[in-house]
Amino acid sequence: MENRVRLVRELIEETKDAIGDTCAVAVRMSADDGTGTLEHPVSDDRREMFEILAEIPDLWDVNIHNYEHEMGVSRFIKEASLENTMNYVKTITSKPVVTVGRFTSPDTMVSQVRRGIVDFIGAARPSIADPFLPMKIKEGRGDEIRECIGCNICYAGDSLGVPIRCTQNPTMGEEWRRGWHPERIQPKSSDATVLVVGSGPAGLEATRALGQRGYTVMLAEASTELGGRVTLESRLPGLSEWGRVRDYRVNLIQTMPNVDIFLDNNLDADDALSIGAEHIVIATGSKWRADGFGRYHEKPCLNLGPAEKLFTPDDIFRGRVPQGKAVVFDDDHYYMGSVIAEALVAQGVEVCFVTPENLVSAWGVMTDEQYQTQQHLIQLGVQIITAHGLESFDGSSARLSCVYTEQTREIEADAVVLVTARTPVDDLYKEIAGKIGSAGPGSEPVPSLDKIGDCDAPAIIAAAVYAGHRYARELGAMG
Amino acid sequence: MENRVRLVRELIEETKDAIGDTCAVAVRMSADDGTGTLEHPVSDDRREMFEILAEIPDLWDVNIHNYEHEMGVSRFIKEASLENTMNYVKTITSKPVVTVGRFTSPDTMVSQVRRGIVDFIGAARPSIADPFLPMKIKEGRGDEIRECIGCNICYAGDSLGVPIRCTQNPTMGEEWRRGWHPERIQPKSSDATVLVVGSGPAGLEATRALGQRGYTVMLAEASTELGGRVTLESRLPGLSEWGRVRDYRVNLIQTMPNVDIFLDNNLDADDALSIGAEHIVIATGSKWRADGFGRYHEKPCLNLGPAEKLFTPDDIFRGRVPQGKAVVFDDDHYYMGSVIAEALVAQGVEVCFVTPENLVSAWGVMTDEQYQTQQHLIQLGVQIITAHGLESFDGSSARLSCVYTEQTREIEADAVVLVTARTPVDDLYKEIAGKIGSAGPGSEPVPSLDKIGDCDAPAIIAAAVYAGHRYARELGAMG
Repeated sequence: MENRVRLVRELIEETKDAIGDTCAVAVRMSADDGTGTLEHPVSDDRREMFEILAEIPDLWDVNIHNYEHEMGVSRFIKEASLENTMNYVKTITSKPVVTVGRFTSPDTMVSQVRRGIVDFIGAARPSIADPFLPMKIKEGRGDEIRECIGCNICYAGDSLGVPIRCTQNPTMGEEWRRGWHPERIQPKSSDATVLVVGSGPAGLEATRALGQRGYTVMLAEASTELGGRVTLESRLPGLSEWGRVRDYRVNLIQTMPNVDIFLDNNLDADDALSIGAEHIVIATGSKWRADGFGRYHEKPCLNLGPAEKLFTPDDIFRGRVPQGKAVVFDDDHYYMGSVIAEALVAQGVEVCFVTPENLVSAWGVMTDEQYQTQQHLIQLGVQIITAHGLESFDGSSARLSCVYTEQTREIEADAVVLVTARTPVDDLYKEIAGKIGSAGPGSEPVPSLDKIGDCDAPAIIAAAVYAGHRYARELGAMG
Repeated sequence: MENRVRLVRELIEETKDAIGDTCAVAVRMSADDGTGTLEHPVSDDRREMFEILAEIPDLWDVNIHNYEHEMGVSRFIKEASLENTMNYVKTITSKPVVTVGRFTSPDTMVSQVRRGIVDFIGAARPSIADPFLPMKIKEGRGDEIRECIGCNICYAGDSLGVPIRCTQNPTMGEEWRRGWHPERIQPKSSDATVLVVGSGPAGLEATRALGQRGYTVMLAEASTELGGRVTLESRLPGLSEWGRVRDYRVNLIQTMPNVDIFLDNNLDADDALSIGAEHIVIATGSKWRADGFGRYHEKPCLNLGPAEKLFTPDDIFRGRVPQGKAVVFDDDHYYMGSVIAEALVAQGVEVCFVTPENLVSAWGVMTDEQYQTQQHLIQLGVQIITAHGLESFDGSSARLSCVYTEQTREIEADAVVLVTARTPVDDLYKEIAGKIGSAGPGSEPVPSLDKIGDCDAPAIIAAAVYAGHRYARELGAMG
């Protein structure tokens, strides 16, 4: 053991010698080595290593062996989840200890410090969502924290080699390129009124940021609750933390005297125009397609019937759920297919999950949740058929087609749930555009008209928040 | 149609206007659009596009829609395979036409030109393997062409974002960094004699390059044929072109008066030392492990028995083949598992292919052959079980374990073929090293001793060729 830790020990000692008193030397080391069990997560070997090295660094930065756990999405891994593995470190060193754990709750942070688990709180993803997290805690502004939702879209940028994005913080990665400060925004450039139609992530963020700029904003929502897709999706198994996208914005909007919210207001084009706002922005979202068109199937599937046995996620959101045995056909390849499958299992549906990909939720590789997702579905008893497209469904059986050979096979199915692709809900936008376009010369000045978020281009929630924020930033900047 | 081609047409026309007479404008366009059938590979639409644009570019650079076909590995796609799809282009344009097709045979090239398929021969991979291909044809040195073997290791560098390597041409990517010219090498720095033990890709390339430098080389091969693993593997289904790694080198070595080849010479350490060479280099290769250790299984599997029902690729190479139903357990994840499965099917074995990966030959994604490999095995009737490790085998059934959940299942099996990992065959190296080390003071001067290729570190063939070349380049450079 002395010899096994010699290299690390000498590296730390020589670094300290080279640096002297000019700064402290922190060492990151994993609290476990991956050989532990649930009851005994840390091997005797690893504990002994920490004991030998205990007093050498100036700060212990402790992580764990399993990165998919340390970096887990909120669907599977909850706040402060490293504690059970790393909690012994402080008992064997007098040096300060820091760890991570997707901390966003000040209470959880204080609890870990008080109970002697850590001396410092580490926060990477929570700082991406809100770089002013420590300041807001210090100043007692806890309600203003943009809490990380644990979706790992930040990590997907890393996986893909593209600029970082954050679902909660649309300014992330745009501080320099666009000059967007996460907390500050330029004041309004006119006394115009803005009508925002739709309170999903795009509409809420546009409203919040326009309100922050000082504009008079009217937010019209057709349903009786705010949040759009975020509210619907956060009720699905494991996704409750996603509701923070709504909560952060609604909390702030409610304090703004210049913003009015109109729930249960299903505007038509005449209604929208009669309000007399100088700017109208449509954020009416998208709906899931029911024709089979998706990523693998570049055309609608023929022979999908009967309609009463066909479902989309929108049906499941609204409580219309299949009976008996259902095929969940996932041609979306991100989280929705597996979450819908889980929701159906919870309601007693026998689920067969079919995907043209070779993996369940293949895009989840980017957010480091693919392994846990497939594991979870298997453990729930979901039957999984990979590498198959959906050819047809006649109400009692579905015909699948191998993506490698086009060989077909039939499976029994009382229903098919299509999780494939979405299409914009942009009827209102088109109607208003039509009326504005047909306004004759000499008529009243017409409002500006824009569409943002899923009703412009269905995408991830981060893209909708970004679109809402960008609309608010740029309003009046060009005109 | 006029409108659909307008953008391309105007781009070409405006490029030509901007350039004037200073150079020609070549246009790459796909001969088909992926909607065709085997009988009618080209849609009427695509042909009409070519007809509209026919005379506008100065040169047509024609490829095809399916990149996995255009860029196919030699296992699945043979030389000049684009012809059936692109052969109509020259009938509708008076401009010169070029295409690709992994051309290495001057006869095939001449045939395509004479038959009016193309005016120029395009060659990317063949030029990687031999940048002097055109020159060697011109000078009638066809025997000296280092023919591309179509393994696509060059493309894997692209996929992985690492420097390019070529199985046939070890200087590829090292022209600047190491100053290695593909044809020229510095003359020998002494009159020393070199003993090369083993005539696989490492030993053959070391011999060829040492011979080119002018050294006196003795190449000892234990078996009765040259080529080592390349000879064995090139007999497997689809891999015959890999024999070019041997053929190119043997052709050249046979012309070298300073190189002697000793077949059927299984040297021991005393034999090797008694030859009196100043330098000994061991290239005795590797053997496939029979204990289950591999990429997923980081430890040997317990309970693998009985030995007469266990096989490795080395057994299959040498004609020892299982009877009845065999599990091919692929924990190597590149080509070997699927090639062995195919070889067994050809001999009447019922094959179940098991892999801890989610794909057959998952690493084949890097060389763009994964899809074809999995398709091929399905079409051969091989049963495929992905995402499972091998727990145990008792002679009549194998116990598999799900990589996501560790749930186990039993499958009937009369035999298990382990395609997992290799271990160096370095006994001779160690024996000689021992004798050299124990030579007392005042004894004869001892030879230098090195090991190269798989007997140093089992890897891809390109790495063995590289190691052999590097040994030859560096001999005498330091001393």
